[in-house]
Amino acid sequence: MRLEDRLEKARDVASGAGLDALLISRPSNITYFTAGFKGGSRLLVPVDGEAIILVGGVDLTAAEQYFSGRRVQVKLIRLGEKLDDITVEVLGELGIKKLGFDELPIRTYGRLRGLLGEDALTDLSNNIWALRKAKEDREIRAIRRACEIAVKGMEVASELVEAGRTELEVVGEVEEALRKAGSEEHPFNTIVASGPNSALPHARPSGRELRPGDLVVVDLGATHEGYVSDMTRTFVVGQPGAWQEKVYDLVLRAQQEAIRALRAGLRASEADGVARSMVEEAGYGSYFVHSLGHGLGLEVHEPPRLAPGSDEVLGAGYVITVEPGIYLPGKGGVRIEDTVLVLENGREVLTEFPYGLELP
Amino acid sequence: MRLEDRLEKARDVASGAGLDALLISRPSNITYFTAGFKGGSRLLVPVDGEAIILVGGVDLTAAEQYFSGRRVQVKLIRLGEKLDDITVEVLGELGIKKLGFDELPIRTYGRLRGLLGEDALTDLSNNIWALRKAKEDREIRAIRRACEIAVKGMEVASELVEAGRTELEVVGEVEEALRKAGSEEHPFNTIVASGPNSALPHARPSGRELRPGDLVVVDLGATHEGYVSDMTRTFVVGQPGAWQEKVYDLVLRAQQEAIRALRAGLRASEADGVARSMVEEAGYGSYFVHSLGHGLGLEVHEPPRLAPGSDEVLGAGYVITVEPGIYLPGKGGVRIEDTVLVLENGREVLTEFPYGLELP
Repeated sequence: MRLEDRLEKARDVASGAGLDALLISRPSNITYFTAGFKGGSRLLVPVDGEAIILVGGVDLTAAEQYFSGRRVQVKLIRLGEKLDDITVEVLGELGIKKLGFDELPIRTYGRLRGLLGEDALTDLSNNIWALRKAKEDREIRAIRRACEIAVKGMEVASELVEAGRTELEVVGEVEEALRKAGSEEHPFNTIVASGPNSALPHARPSGRELRPGDLVVVDLGATHEGYVSDMTRTFVVGQPGAWQEKVYDLVLRAQQEAIRALRAGLRASEADGVARSMVEEAGYGSYFVHSLGHGLGLEVHEPPRLAPGSDEVLGAGYVITVEPGIYLPGKGGVRIEDTVLVLENGREVLTEFPYGLELP
Repeated sequence: MRLEDRLEKARDVASGAGLDALLISRPSNITYFTAGFKGGSRLLVPVDGEAIILVGGVDLTAAEQYFSGRRVQVKLIRLGEKLDDITVEVLGELGIKKLGFDELPIRTYGRLRGLLGEDALTDLSNNIWALRKAKEDREIRAIRRACEIAVKGMEVASELVEAGRTELEVVGEVEEALRKAGSEEHPFNTIVASGPNSALPHARPSGRELRPGDLVVVDLGATHEGYVSDMTRTFVVGQPGAWQEKVYDLVLRAQQEAIRALRAGLRASEADGVARSMVEEAGYGSYFVHSLGHGLGLEVHEPPRLAPGSDEVLGAGYVITVEPGIYLPGKGGVRIEDTVLVLENGREVLTEFPYGLELP
């Protein structure tokens, strides 16, 4: 989608709420509404008139190149000037009285409240997420490519999981493969968690050596044109024990069943429930400690959350993760995760990579 | 510093402002006040009574292990429960009337304002930064190690900068070296920016091949025990041109002169001025588009900012970057950066690595 179309969406969000302008601070929202610019401190999109992006010197050249000949004014925050001062100045010059925003520091909010009055400020973050949740074709193409890159990283991981190597060594090789396959950025800290560490969903890689009988959780992603992917596989070093096979099979069946249930119109809480009820019935409910998944796009964690109690409904074009896990403290954990595109009448798994506890 | 000492600091911050408790949301502040825990959603430290950390299921096992036998209550936010609901519940149970905070979403702030009244809420983020800016010995040791790891990454970079390799290939190898040297996490996106890309201070690595005559900016860092390092060197592929040598020498002299000026008591704006006046006198002032440097610790960008107009004064134990740069749009840029510890009567460069445009 082109810059002008995205800015028009921003104007619609503001005018739909009866406001004069939308003030955007969240970096990924700036990227979204500029159709790809990374950087800048704030973006102001008036319902009437030209958008203005406020940038520090560090982003000036990149902004001037990106917005050259396009209808966005680039305004430099000079060294020694304060972003909030310039924000207030610009709002005054444009005569903005009623303002929508996505997020603001409390101090900035207080200042704008003093200036415009509390009723003049409206949090439109959810309206913006409503746009961002449903991906356009171009966004899906970028995510698809980010998924292909992630799969290359997982191939390398599957070749490296063997006794004697450390978690950090495997992370190093995997990240190198991701970079060489073209990942612009690691969207999150790559996880290689072995043995008892695999029971910690957000484990950080360490110098621990992989040992025979370890479960090894590998969670990685890639970035292409700003869009990310996210996938997890769990392997075993050597031969799996009976409990490992049992837990693995359960997680895999729950994940596959949840994926099969996906389609536009399904409630996010129902998707979670498909996997969670299977895990609960097998007696492992208290070890499935997180939600089933999350949206992703320009950020790795975006709405919707696929969780109990969520009131969200999946729509066509949503890209989400499906990642049940069972974590047995002190023993080990299994998580299996794919990035999945929700379709009108089904779904497509974008991170195609074999399942299986044992290595090829 | 031990957990109890850090929590005592949190209590002092709250009681010093005449408040009943400190509510902490910023992840690095949670890590700071828990003396090392990574994770958790919010930490509440009452002036009287036990601290409470609110964690999602994803962090529960890690939190239970970390806080086992220590005087912090771990409270699980169950799936389907809302963090703000639990926050309000806990504040009520403890009878908190006056609350300090570091940062809050506007929605949460609005809710707490409705509950306690506007005057009961105090933004104490600057008081917390005042603590964090001056690093303790243990923090300095961790940063020192993160700097040693970064230097190993830079050694690899200096061996790889040659015609025919792509930016992303170099990034991949460098990051692998950082991991194998023990970096727990990449503190920021590694930059390898060649040719015209080097004129963009925040360039992202691409598939561009390095060519003879390119300037190549390499900006990398490492993490050890949660603490980070940050350093930059600029190389040339093959033989430098006259303008490249001239710009490089100027940036290096400005950087060295600024480093030499550092000591406790120096104003951050003066440190910036030392380098900036040299660059300005040489006629390149408008190409030095960012501030001289920034603090770092648990985060890569922390106060103080070494910039014109800053009212901060450097103190002993501050760890900062010194990183002047000159960026000629379309041609190329030079940045030279070290992580530096400020001492009572001087400074110590923690990222020792040779300077020089030409490769060894």
